[in-house]
Amino acid sequence: MKYLYPPPRLTAPVSLQGMLRDDVLARAGHSYGKSYADVVRAVARHFPHPPDLVAYPSTESELVSVLDWCASSNIAIVPYGGGTSVVGGVETDIGEGYRGCVTIDLSYLDKVVEVDTTSLSALIQAGATGPAIDAQLSKYGLTLRHYPQSFEFSTLGGWIATRAAGHYATVYTHIDEMVESLRVISPSGIVETRRLPASGAGPSPDRFFIGSEGTLGIITEAWMRVQRKPTYRVSRGVFFDNFNEGVECVKELAQSGLYPTNCRLLDPGEALLSGSGDGMKAVLILGFESADHRVEAVMSRGMEICAAHGGSLTESVGSRNGVSVTEISSSADVDSRSVSKWKDSFIRAPYLRDELVLMGIIVETFETAVTWDHFDELDEAVIKAVRGAFAYATGSKGWITRRFTHIYPDGPAVYYTVVAPGRAGAELEQWRTIKQAASEAVLANFGTITHHHAVGRDHRRWYELERPYLFAEILAAAKKVLDPGWVMNPGVLIEQPKNYGALSIVEH
Amino acid sequence: MKYLYPPPRLTAPVSLQGMLRDDVLARAGHSYGKSYADVVRAVARHFPHPPDLVAYPSTESELVSVLDWCASSNIAIVPYGGGTSVVGGVETDIGEGYRGCVTIDLSYLDKVVEVDTTSLSALIQAGATGPAIDAQLSKYGLTLRHYPQSFEFSTLGGWIATRAAGHYATVYTHIDEMVESLRVISPSGIVETRRLPASGAGPSPDRFFIGSEGTLGIITEAWMRVQRKPTYRVSRGVFFDNFNEGVECVKELAQSGLYPTNCRLLDPGEALLSGSGDGMKAVLILGFESADHRVEAVMSRGMEICAAHGGSLTESVGSRNGVSVTEISSSADVDSRSVSKWKDSFIRAPYLRDELVLMGIIVETFETAVTWDHFDELDEAVIKAVRGAFAYATGSKGWITRRFTHIYPDGPAVYYTVVAPGRAGAELEQWRTIKQAASEAVLANFGTITHHHAVGRDHRRWYELERPYLFAEILAAAKKVLDPGWVMNPGVLIEQPKNYGALSIVEH
Repeated sequence: MKYLYPPPRLTAPVSLQGMLRDDVLARAGHSYGKSYADVVRAVARHFPHPPDLVAYPSTESELVSVLDWCASSNIAIVPYGGGTSVVGGVETDIGEGYRGCVTIDLSYLDKVVEVDTTSLSALIQAGATGPAIDAQLSKYGLTLRHYPQSFEFSTLGGWIATRAAGHYATVYTHIDEMVESLRVISPSGIVETRRLPASGAGPSPDRFFIGSEGTLGIITEAWMRVQRKPTYRVSRGVFFDNFNEGVECVKELAQSGLYPTNCRLLDPGEALLSGSGDGMKAVLILGFESADHRVEAVMSRGMEICAAHGGSLTESVGSRNGVSVTEISSSADVDSRSVSKWKDSFIRAPYLRDELVLMGIIVETFETAVTWDHFDELDEAVIKAVRGAFAYATGSKGWITRRFTHIYPDGPAVYYTVVAPGRAGAELEQWRTIKQAASEAVLANFGTITHHHAVGRDHRRWYELERPYLFAEILAAAKKVLDPGWVMNPGVLIEQPKNYGALSIVEH
Repeated sequence: MKYLYPPPRLTAPVSLQGMLRDDVLARAGHSYGKSYADVVRAVARHFPHPPDLVAYPSTESELVSVLDWCASSNIAIVPYGGGTSVVGGVETDIGEGYRGCVTIDLSYLDKVVEVDTTSLSALIQAGATGPAIDAQLSKYGLTLRHYPQSFEFSTLGGWIATRAAGHYATVYTHIDEMVESLRVISPSGIVETRRLPASGAGPSPDRFFIGSEGTLGIITEAWMRVQRKPTYRVSRGVFFDNFNEGVECVKELAQSGLYPTNCRLLDPGEALLSGSGDGMKAVLILGFESADHRVEAVMSRGMEICAAHGGSLTESVGSRNGVSVTEISSSADVDSRSVSKWKDSFIRAPYLRDELVLMGIIVETFETAVTWDHFDELDEAVIKAVRGAFAYATGSKGWITRRFTHIYPDGPAVYYTVVAPGRAGAELEQWRTIKQAASEAVLANFGTITHHHAVGRDHRRWYELERPYLFAEILAAAKKVLDPGWVMNPGVLIEQPKNYGALSIVEH
């Protein structure tokens, strides 16, 4: 077979060869994640920097063997879960200074190892995907109940490494809250934290690894807090005449202590795109769930809040039940048409994106979180900046819509979708112009560069503006402890300090 | 005035003298925290290692000046909030190798600087005590709603530095959850994080400073998530024939998603001590609160769960209302006698402790958290170990009781109170024997050495068993970045590595 890209630069020790692949499919398939730029490059068969080898360890000890070989041979390691990064987190363009690059694919570490039905916890291997986890927990009537949009493909280890957020709106939404303990293999050794419901003993070691994006080591398994499957469920779609009315309503819901499981506000454009609205009104998808108790009463209070802010039930429910916004159906599991339309659309969106890319259309999503007091100015600035970039880069008016994916008492997480016509061969440059305009507006208006897409390589320069300078020093110092050769996912999250080689490791 | 302890070893630059005190009251008053051992030593007028000077900066720039002087002169710094540490966190016995020790008392930094009523957040200085914070927030109808037992004296900075837990039972209990951003002055510079409702950008910098116990720098202010004052409130006391029945009930409540604001289970002895029970039955104090909606319905479901586990309403309520356990009063704010007795006792306990110490009685509390699957064995082992230590160290049967202070879906936080007769002059040795037996039992049975009392100096050797070894290396490496001279609260949390001096700082 003819290589469309550079041949592998590495030959592995015989003892490791059984778990390594160097074929085209493995190498091309592990060159990129799933961002717009990744899809464009993959479609163009542009693979100048594939991993030299792809390792598929099926036990932790195999993983240790390949990691040790790489770390002792100056070979860069890219940990790989589901490969759904949209920020260059699994890209293998690792730069100069390494003998080569090995991607470690965790897909064979996909088991739920142990279930503690008393403490509602499960020990799960890092390579398990969303469906694999739920299938194995289902036997116990349990669920991790973490549904990022990438649920089908992404893995527990990836979620933890990138601080993923599920699709639930309030209380326990980020994977951070669900980690009871974790186990990390670093070049310097194993870090395993104690299973605890809570602790006040020093800074949380878990929280230091959650979000480390493979730069400190590879998470191999974690004890996760799981839940009983919900048996009571109510969902409603609510129309608002404009997005701002919906924003005020959602803020009150976020601060009410009602803790809805779903509280997504779609602007009129998003509502239209997802089929849950007519393009004139904003739509709020509000849902409550419980495995313990009926949730009509909290929905009733939620509907009161919606009504007070001018919300009205979506037509489908209104016409079916003929109820006012303050009444609710007595059924424990009613979805309005808007709700189910939105659900379908949520799951289909990534596939649709790939089709649009093939049609030469630029499709990008980016997201942030910001305190309520700065939301209006951030939103206005982002839309203005993106529209300016549309005009400059594509000569078109483009399309920008947004929704709230998660809400907190002190602010929303906002998710923007941008669509514009691409010019063949110039799409990446056009995309970069739009991305830069959006990111600058986010940072200048008190947002975070990412609420749940992680930093990777693509967000690094804005992350550098966001995080305290001395915290980057701390991350580099921690890396010197765990990964003195700087082989773990180089280029992601932090830049290697110039004098890094001179930094000695702490020894007792 | 005659010094009962060593004269100050330091003379401050003239520019700093206005904020420094070296009088007996300031120095003796800042020698210890409020642990049993601290009170015993203070009562014995044993002050061999007072701080040489006590600084009272009233602005951040004054704090920077005194910190810079200390850091550049090899003077140890002990940050001091309310001085309520029970783990040696503010003790000034800093060991060899320093020119002296300066305690920095933050009590003049006690303002609520800014209130954002839109995002329900407030910028608060670190030296503000519980009452000072609530008084200033009260004008806006807001509250931080964080009530540790030390509420009257302890400070925001202390809470954050030690990962304090309030008295609320579920959801947002640890101060960790309430920090929106923080500002830390370290010898290497200022670390200020961005105000955000949530973020997925790298490991959380806030979480690395929360729990750092003054070893990385001094927290000067933080944006905190605040709440509207609750207007709906229901509390109930429920009797159980024995502690185990109560444990099963509380586990179900923790896993129900009802999120009670109070869910304290007292064993029969605790119930007797606090006046909320007769010493034969366990008592559960269950409460719900909201600023948005009535809470009778959730209490009703809570009472169903209690009834299913054999719980019965405490007599006072039963006799007043003549209701069964599944009914609730329609009043929005009803406290049973048990509930109010418990509240009084909660607030009085620390004062009572001091009186008992003066009477020569050993009184100690310790606490942990553990997953439900290990609770029974931990509890049994702790009680056995403590009773063994009572017999060995005091020749008495002593008294040990426990309560759950916080509950999580995956486990409880357990708080033990031990009381035994002390022998004059030998109390500290006796106390140490009991403390060691208890701590070993906690660690051997999968508990944490502290759920909310912090590590300080007293818990360090058990903390060393609990936290991953490589995480201590990371903390030391971080300290090298922020506090290269190792002057910040030496002796607390981590030991100085032997080769620490050889470790170079990362420079870009």
